[in-house]
Amino acid sequence: MISVEKAIQIVLNSTKDFGVEEIPFLQSSGRILKENIVADRDFPPFNRVSMDGIAIDFHQFQNGQRSFFIEGIQPAGSEQITLKNPKNCIEVMTGAVLPKNTSAVIRYEDLEINNGIATILIDEIKDLQNIHQQGKDEQKGAILIPKNTQISPAEIGVFATVGKSLVKVAKQPKVMIISTGDELVAVDEIPLAHQIRRSNVFTLVSLLENLKIPSTNKNIADDKEVLKNIIKTYLETYDVLLFSGAVSKGKFDFLPEVLEELGVEKLFHQVAQRPGKPFWFGQTNTCKIFAFPGNPVSTFVNCLVYFYPWFYKSMGINFEEKTAILAEDVYFKPDLTYFLQVKIQYRFGHLIATPINSNGSGDLSSLIKATGFIQLPKDKTDFRKGESYPIITYK
Amino acid sequence: MISVEKAIQIVLNSTKDFGVEEIPFLQSSGRILKENIVADRDFPPFNRVSMDGIAIDFHQFQNGQRSFFIEGIQPAGSEQITLKNPKNCIEVMTGAVLPKNTSAVIRYEDLEINNGIATILIDEIKDLQNIHQQGKDEQKGAILIPKNTQISPAEIGVFATVGKSLVKVAKQPKVMIISTGDELVAVDEIPLAHQIRRSNVFTLVSLLENLKIPSTNKNIADDKEVLKNIIKTYLETYDVLLFSGAVSKGKFDFLPEVLEELGVEKLFHQVAQRPGKPFWFGQTNTCKIFAFPGNPVSTFVNCLVYFYPWFYKSMGINFEEKTAILAEDVYFKPDLTYFLQVKIQYRFGHLIATPINSNGSGDLSSLIKATGFIQLPKDKTDFRKGESYPIITYK
Repeated sequence: MISVEKAIQIVLNSTKDFGVEEIPFLQSSGRILKENIVADRDFPPFNRVSMDGIAIDFHQFQNGQRSFFIEGIQPAGSEQITLKNPKNCIEVMTGAVLPKNTSAVIRYEDLEINNGIATILIDEIKDLQNIHQQGKDEQKGAILIPKNTQISPAEIGVFATVGKSLVKVAKQPKVMIISTGDELVAVDEIPLAHQIRRSNVFTLVSLLENLKIPSTNKNIADDKEVLKNIIKTYLETYDVLLFSGAVSKGKFDFLPEVLEELGVEKLFHQVAQRPGKPFWFGQTNTCKIFAFPGNPVSTFVNCLVYFYPWFYKSMGINFEEKTAILAEDVYFKPDLTYFLQVKIQYRFGHLIATPINSNGSGDLSSLIKATGFIQLPKDKTDFRKGESYPIITYK
Repeated sequence: MISVEKAIQIVLNSTKDFGVEEIPFLQSSGRILKENIVADRDFPPFNRVSMDGIAIDFHQFQNGQRSFFIEGIQPAGSEQITLKNPKNCIEVMTGAVLPKNTSAVIRYEDLEINNGIATILIDEIKDLQNIHQQGKDEQKGAILIPKNTQISPAEIGVFATVGKSLVKVAKQPKVMIISTGDELVAVDEIPLAHQIRRSNVFTLVSLLENLKIPSTNKNIADDKEVLKNIIKTYLETYDVLLFSGAVSKGKFDFLPEVLEELGVEKLFHQVAQRPGKPFWFGQTNTCKIFAFPGNPVSTFVNCLVYFYPWFYKSMGINFEEKTAILAEDVYFKPDLTYFLQVKIQYRFGHLIATPINSNGSGDLSSLIKATGFIQLPKDKTDFRKGESYPIITYK
């Protein structure tokens, strides 16, 4: 049995680059960018008026002039016009190009306009005031968004601004999610007393959907030969297989055996953790196999602890560690890393983790009451209120 | 000009219930649940074996018996079998129904099995050990997920477990996103010197996509009559109109005027904040109108500050306030609430907000560098390192 740290290290050492694809920018939110996004022009692309008012030649103000005949108007979205007489002014709108021969903008609030003449009411104005100068934010050619950024609405706006209607993103792995177990019936069936409905596969589908990974799923009966034949095909078809169940030491838990018979290289089986101990991880040349134990909480925590960081690293980005502060003392004796279910709250800039009551890894409703797990290391038994530990949040 | 607090209050007083719809459970992630999800049976539904091993009649152990003939096997997913002879045992698998007439499970690790006889190697066992008792987690009829919960992968798993293949969720408002401005060209066009590409509408589309709200969008030229005719139709067709631009005091910013001419009730125009001051908010009997100023950062922050909480409250859930700790001193003189762009990091259970350099509300790349806004109240000018303030995160 290996430690959680060692298991994570092995998982992260078997990441894989799935290549790049080009997709419409508006469909790219949540995906990982695989090109640098570069300014196609200066930003702003011209000296941009940043207040509604008038534009003047600053020197005239310096020379004492206060009243200016309005020679024209420069709306946003119009070609640049020219101030012909330096003693006049031009009305300008926010977003407009600064008219040629002008060098300061005075806002309406600081003006009085009568009969086509604008009079400045304030004593001090500055050269270039209320002008957002060309190239001030970014120079043409500058990298606005570096490669390997996860795309969010802010990036979508920048793609549009620089004209990237198609963007290169990391290709997603092809994933098959498999449940095993004769006791499982479909969601719309009424289970017999000894049966339960399939649920973990759907939890996994949804956890993967949060990563924008589409997946397919399948239930296979507890029959070794059937299992073996189907998995053989899947190993050749998919980049990743996620299993839920059939990895414990029970008589009908053939999965590790079947995988090894099919030539899958076992990287480890069993991790010193609770819940989720019977986790099995292996690979072929073309496929990674995450075989999670079948209890709902075990499947859930292992997907977050192993699959999520594996996926992010495969896509080229680092998974930032978060920590939270324990709200109460916790005692945990077994020599295992304890993924304790907690409710995370924000208080005055602190993240507070309050343990919730759970009846163990089979307790489906505990995942509803909690919002994450706090990871308590295995070399300790007493964890004190106020100490901070890594957390994994899922809500 | 009203305060941010007052503006938020007005916005939250004009929320609206858009009704309920029933959708397939696997498509419901991110939506707001509109029914209580109830346990359709006890959980676990039977006395469930929680370790692989043997099941015995505990009294026999109490009476000193240590070796048990294996009478049969009870796999997971099979109908309950019965221990016929109380001096025998049954092999049981994790997840199986506890066989009738047995009352304790001893795991393989604590056994030696030879010639069909299991011998217990430990001295102490407890009545009901390694049995997850029927109804221990939840009793039939218990509310597993209350109405008005935002659905995440954990809820998806519970829906499947209790057989909810269709779930009732809050209907989303029908939203139209409108940009105005003659200076705007399409993403795949090359703008002339004085033009820029449409981008804010796509940022808004993406911000709404994060709330699972589908939307349509449209650009309208700066022509008052055209604008008026189109908006008239939209007011009758959509639940929400989101505008970006044309709400400042410029000559061509007809929007507030047009909306009022169309009978839209103005609830406020201009909020004491930076960026995003010229925000206009109003309503008709059937439509809410959020008219955001056209600078990228202004549109972005106002969508998060006003539209997001309005949406969540309309759907029936509260938007939890988060706070973070300032990493450096900030001085801000204007009598405005300051939404300062910050990068939020997690350090030992603390959320640390570090201001990023920005050239103001027109600076598109600042949204890439930051991960959120910290909200600094308007009654202060000096904000000290170590103080905590509300934050709005978007990454």
